[in-house]
Amino acid sequence: MYSNGDIFVGEIIGTAILILFGAGVCAAVTLNHSKAKASGWIVIAFGWGFGVMAGAYTAAPLSGGHLNPAVTLGIAVDTEKWDKVWIYLAGQMIGAMLGAALAYLVYLAQFNANATRGAKGGPGTDSPTPTLGIFSTIPEIRNPVANLLTEIIGTVALVLPILAFGLTKGLGESGTQILIVAFLVVGIGLSLGGPTGYAINPARDLGPRVVHHFLPIPNKGTSDWSYAWVPVAGPLIGGLLAGLIYNAAF
Amino acid sequence: MYSNGDIFVGEIIGTAILILFGAGVCAAVTLNHSKAKASGWIVIAFGWGFGVMAGAYTAAPLSGGHLNPAVTLGIAVDTEKWDKVWIYLAGQMIGAMLGAALAYLVYLAQFNANATRGAKGGPGTDSPTPTLGIFSTIPEIRNPVANLLTEIIGTVALVLPILAFGLTKGLGESGTQILIVAFLVVGIGLSLGGPTGYAINPARDLGPRVVHHFLPIPNKGTSDWSYAWVPVAGPLIGGLLAGLIYNAAF
Amino acid sequence: MYSNGDIFVGEIIGTAILILFGAGVCAAVTLNHSKAKASGWIVIAFGWGFGVMAGAYTAAPLSGGHLNPAVTLGIAVDTEKWDKVWIYLAGQMIGAMLGAALAYLVYLAQFNANATRGAKGGPGTDSPTPTLGIFSTIPEIRNPVANLLTEIIGTVALVLPILAFGLTKGLGESGTQILIVAFLVVGIGLSLGGPTGYAINPARDLGPRVVHHFLPIPNKGTSDWSYAWVPVAGPLIGGLLAGLIYNAAF
Amino acid sequence: MYSNGDIFVGEIIGTAILILFGAGVCAAVTLNHSKAKASGWIVIAFGWGFGVMAGAYTAAPLSGGHLNPAVTLGIAVDTEKWDKVWIYLAGQMIGAMLGAALAYLVYLAQFNANATRGAKGGPGTDSPTPTLGIFSTIPEIRNPVANLLTEIIGTVALVLPILAFGLTKGLGESGTQILIVAFLVVGIGLSLGGPTGYAINPARDLGPRVVHHFLPIPNKGTSDWSYAWVPVAGPLIGGLLAGLIYNAAF
Repeated sequence: MYSNGDIFVGEIIGTAILILFGAGVCAAVTLNHSKAKASGWIVIAFGWGFGVMAGAYTAAPLSGGHLNPAVTLGIAVDTEKWDKVWIYLAGQMIGAMLGAALAYLVYLAQFNANATRGAKGGPGTDSPTPTLGIFSTIPEIRNPVANLLTEIIGTVALVLPILAFGLTKGLGESGTQILIVAFLVVGIGLSLGGPTGYAINPARDLGPRVVHHFLPIPNKGTSDWSYAWVPVAGPLIGGLLAGLIYNAAF
Repeated sequence: MYSNGDIFVGEIIGTAILILFGAGVCAAVTLNHSKAKASGWIVIAFGWGFGVMAGAYTAAPLSGGHLNPAVTLGIAVDTEKWDKVWIYLAGQMIGAMLGAALAYLVYLAQFNANATRGAKGGPGTDSPTPTLGIFSTIPEIRNPVANLLTEIIGTVALVLPILAFGLTKGLGESGTQILIVAFLVVGIGLSLGGPTGYAINPARDLGPRVVHHFLPIPNKGTSDWSYAWVPVAGPLIGGLLAGLIYNAAF
Repeated sequence: MYSNGDIFVGEIIGTAILILFGAGVCAAVTLNHSKAKASGWIVIAFGWGFGVMAGAYTAAPLSGGHLNPAVTLGIAVDTEKWDKVWIYLAGQMIGAMLGAALAYLVYLAQFNANATRGAKGGPGTDSPTPTLGIFSTIPEIRNPVANLLTEIIGTVALVLPILAFGLTKGLGESGTQILIVAFLVVGIGLSLGGPTGYAINPARDLGPRVVHHFLPIPNKGTSDWSYAWVPVAGPLIGGLLAGLIYNAAF
Repeated sequence: MYSNGDIFVGEIIGTAILILFGAGVCAAVTLNHSKAKASGWIVIAFGWGFGVMAGAYTAAPLSGGHLNPAVTLGIAVDTEKWDKVWIYLAGQMIGAMLGAALAYLVYLAQFNANATRGAKGGPGTDSPTPTLGIFSTIPEIRNPVANLLTEIIGTVALVLPILAFGLTKGLGESGTQILIVAFLVVGIGLSLGGPTGYAINPARDLGPRVVHHFLPIPNKGTSDWSYAWVPVAGPLIGGLLAGLIYNAAF
């Protein structure tokens, strides 16, 4: 249906847009000297949701707009077509890293000012802000079993509705379905994001974590590699599980 | 139209997703160590609304996605077809209990930490939080007549628009109608949820209350069985009333 | 197209639902012992917008769902059909009064407790809350010329887009158009509601003001009849003006 | 497709509505004696987004509803049709100035009261509020290179999805596409608006800045002409870049 080249380019562009919005909104509410500083959970959830909308809408004509290895896996389990999975995943990882770098550029002055300048723009006494939470997820209570469970259930709640309603079959034709996926992601954020910050997408977490590791941000804090496997493994398990539930029930 | 088995499975899955999101968002704003702690009424109303969207969208191809005994009753009054009502209701109750259990698992670490650990994850002095409000509704002013009136009017405001626009006839075909029901539920929450917390769905309140009764949550507080009849009776009366108004006016 | 009886019933039911949601959300954020107390302007704007959605969606098959004399006037100027205008207006006024009474019933315990009981439900020391703002609009700065200007421009911003896109021609067929009108009303509230509380609908303000005048609410405060002409005259002028602009430009 | 006269009138009306809502919501959250005072970033982002929806919906039948020179440029690069670009741009600039003047009239009493009257409407001691931020954008950290980068990336994130999905080809036919553009603008505001206040539209910034320069607002503060080139140049570059990326990738 889609050519390999189109899939690769589409997933890079779409996932880059998703992460640009997602990392962007986390920067917006986290960093000093941002107009959206401390504007709350509703802002974060809608920012990520509309990021999915923007990325999927852009990628739809090229690749169908998966933007998420968990979605790609769930569809592969359902359709039993596995041959293009790796093209999707490669595009998603590259796109996620590109998007994180773009979000860094949008907030460049804010990142550079992290604890090195004051509220008026001169030298100052702002507290440095840890920056990993802008790029990747951090659990509120660190408990691998509980954290994994949260990510698995959250990802099933994303992928099962997408499969159940055949969302993946007509992405190119109706904007309404992309709107519904966007609000689904908003809902998952509002409802299921409290414990771990809802990765529900391995590329969304791992790609930006790699970028955070290398970026020259003052006082950036740890990249927390010991937790990195949870938001990769949880969503992968959740995507496979959603595919199996779908095949059993529908 | 739908087979008995599909109705049963569809209502279980759909209602479970609805309650997973609904109880989830109440946990998110209520529990300590949640990123959405105290994020306000707008978060709760959109969380429940997008839960209805996610559940109805998933269940639509199997059962039409009622997810609510009051909706099922209103449709039965309208169509005069009562033979499958009990299958819907059984699926809805089982799904509501399943969804409450899933929400508990998503917030497992937070529930286990209820007043037994501090802000940094070590032993601490957090105040214990009563947990019933995460699962079921609690009125702000306890007055059975007024509370019943609130639930009846709120449920009519849900079921009458659904019947009036023939929403129930084409759920499988257009996502727009599911979006409208989702925003209808958001609106009911914002506007009519202040006094009682808007059950407007007997299964949504009774199922999770049973689960709350049995869950091993530290300091969980009362399951408040003396109020439990109001959010069951009110929505059932409201659903029947909406069906009668519809038949008279349309 | 629509019979006189259907128009009358449809506008009563639709406008009642609109005001039930609209007065409801104002009660929700205003009254003590409401779960949505002080939850902010975003809650009010979305509550009114989804009230328009719910009312218009319900009334659409009977009357096209105007729910607003300013919309009815704008359409009459455009189509040059004036013979059914009074049926619409009569239904809208009756519906607005009915909706205000229903919102009163939803918040009955809260209204009855206005300064006569404390936070725990026993006798107490809550401050009494003026209640007119739940039913009708009150300007922040009382200046008839400026207030009238605000209401006129706000109403043009409602009626002109509705006319321009032919929204009124296909309400019965596509939910998307009702969604767009709903978000249009949310936008007007967010952007243009600051000075006067955005009546933009004569029935929405006058009907509930009459009801407020007669309701037995403790400490209810003034019904402020000296201002009542502004939110009637402003929206009527705005609706006519939108019709004239539309006929000139489109 | 569209006549020159229709394009000119359509872009004037549509851009005026966009800026009426956009400047309106900034006035709503900024000025004293506004009901929406200090209601937060979520209000600003949705106010601008629904302003785009209202303006584009109104202008769609006349001009396709660009409302933004960056969108017009992106489409011109894609279609290689440049002959009507100046009609679009002229209409957009005139419309933006008209919309800013209308927003001033909606908040006339509030502007006139800027630090000249107290909270009760009598003479008082309110602090005067700088008013430029209601009309045009102001960066949080003044750094032309970083600010330009923010505006370029933000504009690509607007124009690329619009081009990619062929939004511009069917604006007149489906409201869903206008809804998606509206939420895209909400998302850009939430995610990418923190550093500069997201002009992402040269007319949106320059037109209202001219109006601010001439309006007789008490204590209005500077019109900050030294920054004015950034929110013009950045979005123009972004629009061209989006067109080039689109032609290369799609």
